[in-house]
Amino acid sequence: MNVVITVDPRNGGRRTTDLTETDDSRLAEIADQASRTARWLSGLGRLGRAGLLDAIAASMEACRSRLIGTAEPETGLSRPRLDHELTRAAVQFRMFRDVLHDGGYVEAAIDHAADTPLGPGPDVRRMLVPLGPVAVFGASNFPFAFSVAGGDTAAALAAGCPVVVKAHPSHPLTSHASVEAIESAVRGMDGPDGVVALVYGQQAGLALVRHPAIRAAALTGSVGAARAIQAAIDERPDPIPLYGELSSLNPIVVLPGAAADRGDQIAEGLFASFTGSGGQLCTKPGLAFVPAGPGGDRLVEALRTRVASAGGAVLLNQNIRDAFLARAAVIERAGVRVSARPQVPSGEGFTVAPALLETSLPGLPAEITDECFGPLLVVVRYRAVAELDAALRAVPPSLTASVHTGPGEGTAGFRRLVDLLTARSGRVVFDGYPTGVRVSWAQHHGGPWPSTNTVHTSVGATSIRRFLRPLAWQDAPEWILPEELRDDFTNIPRRVDGRLEPAVQPVRR
Amino acid sequence: MNVVITVDPRNGGRRTTDLTETDDSRLAEIADQASRTARWLSGLGRLGRAGLLDAIAASMEACRSRLIGTAEPETGLSRPRLDHELTRAAVQFRMFRDVLHDGGYVEAAIDHAADTPLGPGPDVRRMLVPLGPVAVFGASNFPFAFSVAGGDTAAALAAGCPVVVKAHPSHPLTSHASVEAIESAVRGMDGPDGVVALVYGQQAGLALVRHPAIRAAALTGSVGAARAIQAAIDERPDPIPLYGELSSLNPIVVLPGAAADRGDQIAEGLFASFTGSGGQLCTKPGLAFVPAGPGGDRLVEALRTRVASAGGAVLLNQNIRDAFLARAAVIERAGVRVSARPQVPSGEGFTVAPALLETSLPGLPAEITDECFGPLLVVVRYRAVAELDAALRAVPPSLTASVHTGPGEGTAGFRRLVDLLTARSGRVVFDGYPTGVRVSWAQHHGGPWPSTNTVHTSVGATSIRRFLRPLAWQDAPEWILPEELRDDFTNIPRRVDGRLEPAVQPVRR
Repeated sequence: MNVVITVDPRNGGRRTTDLTETDDSRLAEIADQASRTARWLSGLGRLGRAGLLDAIAASMEACRSRLIGTAEPETGLSRPRLDHELTRAAVQFRMFRDVLHDGGYVEAAIDHAADTPLGPGPDVRRMLVPLGPVAVFGASNFPFAFSVAGGDTAAALAAGCPVVVKAHPSHPLTSHASVEAIESAVRGMDGPDGVVALVYGQQAGLALVRHPAIRAAALTGSVGAARAIQAAIDERPDPIPLYGELSSLNPIVVLPGAAADRGDQIAEGLFASFTGSGGQLCTKPGLAFVPAGPGGDRLVEALRTRVASAGGAVLLNQNIRDAFLARAAVIERAGVRVSARPQVPSGEGFTVAPALLETSLPGLPAEITDECFGPLLVVVRYRAVAELDAALRAVPPSLTASVHTGPGEGTAGFRRLVDLLTARSGRVVFDGYPTGVRVSWAQHHGGPWPSTNTVHTSVGATSIRRFLRPLAWQDAPEWILPEELRDDFTNIPRRVDGRLEPAVQPVRR
Repeated sequence: MNVVITVDPRNGGRRTTDLTETDDSRLAEIADQASRTARWLSGLGRLGRAGLLDAIAASMEACRSRLIGTAEPETGLSRPRLDHELTRAAVQFRMFRDVLHDGGYVEAAIDHAADTPLGPGPDVRRMLVPLGPVAVFGASNFPFAFSVAGGDTAAALAAGCPVVVKAHPSHPLTSHASVEAIESAVRGMDGPDGVVALVYGQQAGLALVRHPAIRAAALTGSVGAARAIQAAIDERPDPIPLYGELSSLNPIVVLPGAAADRGDQIAEGLFASFTGSGGQLCTKPGLAFVPAGPGGDRLVEALRTRVASAGGAVLLNQNIRDAFLARAAVIERAGVRVSARPQVPSGEGFTVAPALLETSLPGLPAEITDECFGPLLVVVRYRAVAELDAALRAVPPSLTASVHTGPGEGTAGFRRLVDLLTARSGRVVFDGYPTGVRVSWAQHHGGPWPSTNTVHTSVGATSIRRFLRPLAWQDAPEWILPEELRDDFTNIPRRVDGRLEPAVQPVRR
């Protein structure tokens, strides 16, 4: 069995771990165990699972220093960033605790037996039920909040689905420590092993989604990873859904009035947004449309100054570093001018210099419309707002699109621009930046292909729906129904005979 | 261009029509037109679209005699059956009218800007928006309610999506007449042509789902049709969802107490359920587990008597007739005994005899676990309820599963059986029959593969969600937001800062 290696991206140092890649027989054990733990999760009920999520959040926080201490040398991410991310992971578990207390997510609906224009209608009751064990592919760039203890895991557990995580090779020890923190919470509730389990190795990840026990897969990764996983899924006799969050350029449009009014402030925000976490965020702005003329010039100059004096960024692993340098070279070869790129000490791990590049409309080189993961921003100068229509259509759809407006720029032409941005993204940001995705009920993190491969979200309350399926009961005796579908249960919002009835008991918070 | 042929299944008579198969250039026009009409549908708003659906329902009913007169010779379905189905189609449009009035389907959610454990959170607002033009593949067996003017079309129009229907070759003239009825309603609202358009021919159907303007596809058909459509979709650079309702055996379990208590009544219900509409219903029970012993014997004898004296059933087309006869032959060759099959006059169109076959556990021939579309039921005799567990696991998952219980049979063992049925179906029916799917808010028509290829439903209020995607607005000025997301809009239920707020104004009905 292959030993799992951990690499320190700050210096490239490689170390063997006690962990081994998961072979087929171990995978079969893990999958069987997941099927068994599904019954425990289901038996907990909504409120029991809410307690479990609360306990996991607390356990993650109790293990904070050990988790961060493990993640720092595996990811090169700073301690403050990791600290904030661990809080985010805990907040995600607590948000789903609230979703479970509320109970609206099961979409309980009751149609009592009635005479209808089509004759006597039977009693029909519907709610969402768990799909079964879920495979989660951890992301490299969020070792807590989009990995083992991330949002997909929180949503799946909330739904009642056990989780098998394919550990990201960039943080195997952090993955292991995260599972330990989760297991500690499960044990505190007398739960079984394997509610959240781990597999290591690329082959194990593909074998995982081929396993009959697995009922859905979730990925935060690349288009290439999604294609490989989908190909493995396509080998199954029974299709399962793959929910992928994949690739995004996140264009930002700065309108002339905004550049004139607060170009320096926008330069500061844009710099922070494209260089934060080494530019390794799915919502990193990769393209900024900035007007020609003095306002735009000042904005770009302010950006250039900031980039020129910036330090190097440690990227997460060698693949990401190599891909970043290759992508930057492709963009330069396409005639896009390097506007600023500081000298940074090389040879130390996976450190790169942030890069600001610049080009002008008309004509958008195709090379700049692929995501470049890392601290690189291409500024595209335009002369007239009318040019933006064609330019934005040449940019692939994204998770987000942002627009900065100045005084008096909210006009009919602006509506047309916003319509274009909404048609080609999943979240439109006004006078702000797409990074720093808020964790809240209304959040949506998804968008048209290639940003995601489905219409679903991986952040926000409705991300739980990915792991549920509808089930209807016709003329069922009351005792066989889930409590949420019995006539006298009023603790959750339900749709009864077509009318929404709010919960009668106040929601616990 | 190939001329479209219509065939009378009652006598096999073929007739050319004025219609031609749709070529690529006409398809491009239709797709462009659909994109343009999307703006009109969106501009109508929720209440405007509710009015459109109402008008379509009225127009279908105003054209009732012409539609039925056209469908009868194309489908061989009886006038009373077609009359009932046309009412069903109208009821479906009116249900979505109510869904639009209610407005909860947009899932409006508002998270106001707030301090959070992760710092200041921006204002985030989310709702579902239309996907864009939808391709619908009409089913052979419901020329109204699952075809041009069927549930998929009603749901898509309600969502704000124009529809291009690939006409089923078994009822081209009915398809054409249905579009005329819809167009008359659209014209009454000064709407454009092509809100619902038609293409004819298999190649046109595949070209349709490859067209960039098409954003989703819905099918009620076979696994084979779904595979062909999915293969065409896989040629696109951007994936689109295919919502397929495909294949279902719909097992029925009769427990010993039920057979003893009301075997004759169950025989009557089962006979009607498996022979109604020539057995050509996706929810037709194809397998019935009946106990050994005197109660079961009487039930089977009563069934046999009914089948032996039944007349022939006209099937919808030659493919269905040929497939029915071939499937029945395969089942017989597997050693399943013919229990009853009347002599019916042959040589007249696509008429077949209904067939009752019988086998016994242990051991379920694999040949009986594929759907046989048409009036065929396999009775499987069992000696002990304990045998059912393994037998039901050998049956592929279905849209529905039904169980009939006698006095005192609601026990812990029964719970285990119901858990197995719910795990392997999308709707569990108690002491009833799966056919005659009620059109209502809580209905679910879907199930694990191969009954459907996704977790979505094609009947019931939530079927609208197939044609919507979430969109979030961050810190948007109020005037740019859809009215449903403005602070002072209270006409629909919304989730505000995590709490469900019911509509303040009463829902129009």
